[in-house]
Amino acid sequence: MKLADRLSRLGTETAFAVSGEAAAHVAAGNKVYPFHLGDMNITTPRNIIEATYQAMKDGKTGYCPNYGIPPLREALAEDINKSHGTSYTMDNVAVQPGGKPSIGKFVLALMNPGDEALYPNPGYPIYESQIEFNGGVAVPYTYHEGEDNFELDLDAIEALITPKTRLLIVNDLQNPTGAESSPEQLEAIAKLAIKHDLFVLSDEAYFDMRYAGKSTSLASFEGMEERTVILYTFSKKYAMTGWRLGASIGPKEVIDMIAKLNVNDESCSNHFIQYGGIEALTGDQSGHEEILTVLKERRDMTVAILNSISGVKCYRPDATFYLFPNVTELMQAKGLTDYELFRKAVLQETGVSFCTRKHFGSPIPGEKQFYIRFAYSGIDLDQIEEGLGKFKAWAE
Amino acid sequence: MKLADRLSRLGTETAFAVSGEAAAHVAAGNKVYPFHLGDMNITTPRNIIEATYQAMKDGKTGYCPNYGIPPLREALAEDINKSHGTSYTMDNVAVQPGGKPSIGKFVLALMNPGDEALYPNPGYPIYESQIEFNGGVAVPYTYHEGEDNFELDLDAIEALITPKTRLLIVNDLQNPTGAESSPEQLEAIAKLAIKHDLFVLSDEAYFDMRYAGKSTSLASFEGMEERTVILYTFSKKYAMTGWRLGASIGPKEVIDMIAKLNVNDESCSNHFIQYGGIEALTGDQSGHEEILTVLKERRDMTVAILNSISGVKCYRPDATFYLFPNVTELMQAKGLTDYELFRKAVLQETGVSFCTRKHFGSPIPGEKQFYIRFAYSGIDLDQIEEGLGKFKAWAE
Ligand SMILES: Cc1ncc(COP(=O)(O)O)c(C=O)c1O
Ligand SMILES: Cc1ncc(COP(=O)(O)O)c(C=O)c1O
Repeated sequence: MKLADRLSRLGTETAFAVSGEAAAHVAAGNKVYPFHLGDMNITTPRNIIEATYQAMKDGKTGYCPNYGIPPLREALAEDINKSHGTSYTMDNVAVQPGGKPSIGKFVLALMNPGDEALYPNPGYPIYESQIEFNGGVAVPYTYHEGEDNFELDLDAIEALITPKTRLLIVNDLQNPTGAESSPEQLEAIAKLAIKHDLFVLSDEAYFDMRYAGKSTSLASFEGMEERTVILYTFSKKYAMTGWRLGASIGPKEVIDMIAKLNVNDESCSNHFIQYGGIEALTGDQSGHEEILTVLKERRDMTVAILNSISGVKCYRPDATFYLFPNVTELMQAKGLTDYELFRKAVLQETGVSFCTRKHFGSPIPGEKQFYIRFAYSGIDLDQIEEGLGKFKAWAE
Repeated sequence: MKLADRLSRLGTETAFAVSGEAAAHVAAGNKVYPFHLGDMNITTPRNIIEATYQAMKDGKTGYCPNYGIPPLREALAEDINKSHGTSYTMDNVAVQPGGKPSIGKFVLALMNPGDEALYPNPGYPIYESQIEFNGGVAVPYTYHEGEDNFELDLDAIEALITPKTRLLIVNDLQNPTGAESSPEQLEAIAKLAIKHDLFVLSDEAYFDMRYAGKSTSLASFEGMEERTVILYTFSKKYAMTGWRLGASIGPKEVIDMIAKLNVNDESCSNHFIQYGGIEALTGDQSGHEEILTVLKERRDMTVAILNSISGVKCYRPDATFYLFPNVTELMQAKGLTDYELFRKAVLQETGVSFCTRKHFGSPIPGEKQFYIRFAYSGIDLDQIEEGLGKFKAWAE
């Protein structure tokens, strides 16, 4: 069976291979400390589950509109307007089976083959894959170490813009770095987008996953509502990763096209879980707050232990559930210059499982520092302490 | 905001416009008899709902593998092997958010731009849309009236095959005609596919929706398992249209690529409803049987009344929940030569709402007969009687 040529341009999440190896390590009778997962070991708040069950029993089991059900679209518009100061209505919202579908549909709706698209690297690997699969040129921009977190270099980004640049993908509160730009920097990015007439995907998967401070959206700046599509997802805020519920929020003409892609790709998102989505947004928020409380404790412990290991340097981001420690000195001390050898050695010898910089895009020529990614969303406090204790002992 | 050029090749389901008009007619204070829906007004069997609720409570709320959960993939392979005589394992199964996603992913995985793809017209409109959107040439083959149902003309199909033909889409137990080929005809189609080295999408959305006789799959014939992708869906068999649960079943190398598309497009299908899918396949089947009993009564009444109307001629298919009556004489008697004028006149004057042949692909040059589509899946017996009574009175 000869497969289509386009598949040679299709990327994937190589992090799945890490899950496979961790599972094999467990199957071989070993203990694993799972810091590699982007998933959460926290269950969805009960009020959301009950609202969903009620909707099933109420017969919300037939097709719903390709845009999603109107009350959920309204609730989303209202929720976003409150935090973003925007003026969306339900016409600006197309419900999606997760946050991820907004990436491919944004690219399909706005990029022609040959167009250039700027995306963060290290970053969520699906940006690069969807750009290239659909015939675009994926142009990486990167982060560098700043005073107390990773930072973007606006001049470097602008230097990458050519007359063919059309899309700019931004993931403030970033996976994998945990980086967050200041409102001033975000405003500068907004001005760049306007100046060069770029369309922006604002990936806000972690917008509400924060332990201090306040998130700012690119869509909030003057002139940005008409050129931004927000990737919204229930996955992280309400521990609903496996529900596959999210939305694309943006200018009506783009949303209409994304909804037309829905008709072609999957008709609509699951009907009854959209009632769970309404309960999530408008009901009791204590479930969400409890999730943040749990995650904050985990962050504090993970950062503290990592920074106590010689040769490891780790920021303490206020948002996301990722850490991206610099392990250059540790790798040097161990005589390792290869990410995979390092990762596998730690897994084999300590059970601590993590992803590395390589799972988040091809390293950019000239990179000299080594980073690994710890997610603390899928591991409990006592396991963090035990696992990182072993990692520290191995390191020293 | 300049949209991408490719969107000009994206089709849709124009039938949604009919739903919109029906809703407007209701909003204006009128009664509507909904024969236009491909949806069902029957709720999902309770055992499936309860199994899903249990899975939610059991914490099956995190991501699951992009292929779907192994026990569901195993249950699907076993279920299909039993009815098809095939030898699939879970490696041949990628769970999807509905049956529809298999169409686009089959096309993406196996068709290069410029390749020709044969598809039924009249037929489900997404075939044509996905072929053209992805740069292929959509080549329609059609049905003609036979002795007691619509039939395919194998010679006419073979005459459409050129060296560029690569895909053949078949929807036996067909939407919108209700047509079904004999096992001998299906075998001839299989031979055609093998002779011309075509890859086949076997859209089996209605495989189990039958009131007499037995369905046959193209995948069952010698040499076909390795060139066929089965579109499987829970939508109709278990009245689960709004759940968005289905699967692609086929050769491992294609399924692996479809699963890689899953990673890029939506990560995975909703986790906990897959436990509902296992209950559907392996649990009590009385819910499914009850659905068939209800639909059979509706079919019998709808066919009987339609055939009692002068100028209307309707087959009585053993499968699907669609009827595709020939209304050429009725339209002539009413002095109408335009589908939309006819459809709107009937809606306005009787409240009976249906789709026409035009909602299932562009009419093929030379077509002289006029057909409309009645779906009896979304309307109760008493409403069928009342609505079609009004239609008959209007007609005569
Ligand atoms: C940056 C980023 N964007 C989008 C997503 C998509 O998540 P989902 O599809 O579950 O909403 C993720 C998930 O890990 C992510 O890290
Ligand atoms: C012929 C045919 N194929 C596929 C589908 C897809 O249905 P679903 O995506 O709900 O499984 C339908 C739905 O009406 C259909 O009629």
